[in-house]
Amino acid sequence: MSDAKSQVSAGIIIIGNEILSGRTHDKNTHFLAGRLTEMGINVGEAIVVPDIPAKIIETVQTYSKRFDYVFTTGGIGPTHDDLTSESVAKAFNTPLELNADAHEILKNHYKHELNEARLKMGYIPVGAELIENPVSAAPGFRIENVYVMAGIPSIMQAMFASIKHQLKGGAPLLSKTISGPTSEGLIATELTQIQKNHPEVDIGSYPFFHDGVLGVSLVIRGTDQAKIDAAAVQVEALVEKTKR
Amino acid sequence: MSDAKSQVSAGIIIIGNEILSGRTHDKNTHFLAGRLTEMGINVGEAIVVPDIPAKIIETVQTYSKRFDYVFTTGGIGPTHDDLTSESVAKAFNTPLELNADAHEILKNHYKHELNEARLKMGYIPVGAELIENPVSAAPGFRIENVYVMAGIPSIMQAMFASIKHQLKGGAPLLSKTISGPTSEGLIATELTQIQKNHPEVDIGSYPFFHDGVLGVSLVIRGTDQAKIDAAAVQVEALVEKTKR
Repeated sequence: MSDAKSQVSAGIIIIGNEILSGRTHDKNTHFLAGRLTEMGINVGEAIVVPDIPAKIIETVQTYSKRFDYVFTTGGIGPTHDDLTSESVAKAFNTPLELNADAHEILKNHYKHELNEARLKMGYIPVGAELIENPVSAAPGFRIENVYVMAGIPSIMQAMFASIKHQLKGGAPLLSKTISGPTSEGLIATELTQIQKNHPEVDIGSYPFFHDGVLGVSLVIRGTDQAKIDAAAVQVEALVEKTKR
Repeated sequence: MSDAKSQVSAGIIIIGNEILSGRTHDKNTHFLAGRLTEMGINVGEAIVVPDIPAKIIETVQTYSKRFDYVFTTGGIGPTHDDLTSESVAKAFNTPLELNADAHEILKNHYKHELNEARLKMGYIPVGAELIENPVSAAPGFRIENVYVMAGIPSIMQAMFASIKHQLKGGAPLLSKTISGPTSEGLIATELTQIQKNHPEVDIGSYPFFHDGVLGVSLVIRGTDQAKIDAAAVQVEALVEKTKR
């Protein structure tokens, strides 16, 4: 989908060496991309950066300017390789300080086990607003248009649930998928013509090959159901005509 | 792991609206990150960009300069939304032309079913070298340090197998993982000290929570087994001491 068709945009920043080393399979991009798209927020780019402050700072600054919303995941725990909070503070040229509300949350959660390392999770950039963490207490935060969340998928998803109501989407993106046992090479020329005749929708072509069956899924996306349906009639006829 | 510790670097570019809309869960980053790391190639960054030529061109140019190797997946099929080959050609300021070898491969594979759309997959930037596709024939290609591969994971993996021998890794990255029922907050302060005492390894801390058990995996990475083992002794003692 082109930038022009969706008025609200987002960028996703996944922070962590463990993704880039292949140790951990990132699940957060897929989750966020799906939820944001449903809300009419167009994800323009997603990036995985290592635990290197200069990279985090530069990426947060660039994405914050380019997109309406930015979501980061990872690097807000208590250990030495958790560098996101201090990097985001630097990206916005604001100090990191022990946030009174975050301190309270950590005291209530850890009680007498609240040590120096855990207290580090209460240090939040000045001017940020906390994001509730119903799973493991230590909060995320929002500063300007950047939402900083945990890397563990279950915690990130719980944090996303607590900020979702704050996000303003554009017209929700609707879609219709037509799949059939054809092949991209048989439909491509006519599909190009259908796309040209229906400039207000985006037609994506996704070949698949599983259980020995080769086929194509054609996804028609747009914000106007009638326009999607009009394109779908032609796409269905094309798939039917080229069935093998 | 910091750039300084690994001498060979790579960037991964995943091309496709379907990943950014949440329709498809990208599996290629995880596969490539794992294989490259094993080979001593440090993945410095991975990015998902939409099917927009200007974005693809800009990202390919930037990554080609920043990293020793660049791997792209997606967008080399026959349909209107497959824009990778023409974009990579533009990134290197070279024309796209019908490659004689690719043409031969497509003729042999499709025989009398080779139509105009399928022939599009034979258009390769001038100066590029083909990458064999043992799954579905249409080749990928390498131009300078950029390897352009299919998006379907099974095809991408087969293409990677055919180029793997061309890649020169640095010293293979070794690792040792120590997991236990402790928590990051209990180990963080001493772990920071262990990391400081062992600057030639990188210690990553990854909390986990599954089957009701909370724990931490500590991954010690480096290129010198003796140095990893020395750090591991201290990490093991710390995990043992903080067991709950």
